Amino acid sequence: MPFALDPRLAGDTHHLASLPLCELLLMDNALLPWLILVPRVSVTELYQLSAEQRRQLDDETTAVAAFVAGAFAIDKLNVAAIGNVVAQLHVHVVGRRRDDYAWPGVVWGRSERTPYEPNAVAELRSRTATVLAGERATTREAR
Amino acid sequence: MPFALDPRLAGDTHHLASLPLCELLLMDNALLPWLILVPRVSVTELYQLSAEQRRQLDDETTAVAAFVAGAFAIDKLNVAAIGNVVAQLHVHVVGRRRDDYAWPGVVWGRSERTPYEPNAVAELRSRTATVLAGERATTREAR
Repeated sequence: MPFALDPRLAGDTHHLASLPLCELLLMDNALLPWLILVPRVSVTELYQLSAEQRRQLDDETTAVAAFVAGAFAIDKLNVAAIGNVVAQLHVHVVGRRRDDYAWPGVVWGRSERTPYEPNAVAELRSRTATVLAGERATTREAR
Repeated sequence: MPFALDPRLAGDTHHLASLPLCELLLMDNALLPWLILVPRVSVTELYQLSAEQRRQLDDETTAVAAFVAGAFAIDKLNVAAIGNVVAQLHVHVVGRRRDDYAWPGVVWGRSERTPYEPNAVAELRSRTATVLAGERATTREAR
């Protein structure tokens, strides 16, 4: 069965890039940097991935987390696979600030949203491309 | 500096086991199966771990997640590194049911708690020991 992004995930986000294992999405909320990795797999739990898929997801999540930590003024990263509402396996990488709207609580279940300006999405897509190029290169070297 | 468990984590949990990288804790809340892995490291973000530490944490988290999924009647796993309140790096593995007190919301920030009976903790410690023995064996084989 070909991979299809869950419509709810698609509707809440902008597509940033396709990584070797994951689609990389940007939650449409300019209030904080909130990226989502969606592995192109059919299982719904991390532990159901193959060892190779887990390694690859870990590498891609690490690259995205390092990008968010380096590109934004944040105090903490929140990294989570929850999936209670959208079952399709996806990993949140959220950059948190001590003065953001939900701190120290979590962002899931909160409704605050400010949509991105189109220019801001395009700029983020361009900035992530650099990181992703590095991740692709690393992946190739590891093979 | 020797590893010291954050006092707040220690106060909220029971110690289940020491894994090769992590201390495995049980949140003292019998309402759902909620385990916590605490790597014996000083960094506070997953992406700051070495590649070897990330692999090991991933293996241990996977073993714990598979244990929770197999030992309890659950509908979904929530796996998360948050750390907004307790900065010490720790990974939650929470077994969720569609009829639990927080579903479909997340458990973080909720105060519902029912402490475990001592016998129940001892039984869980014994059951996890089997899983952990397997994880240790796998780790040895991989070396």
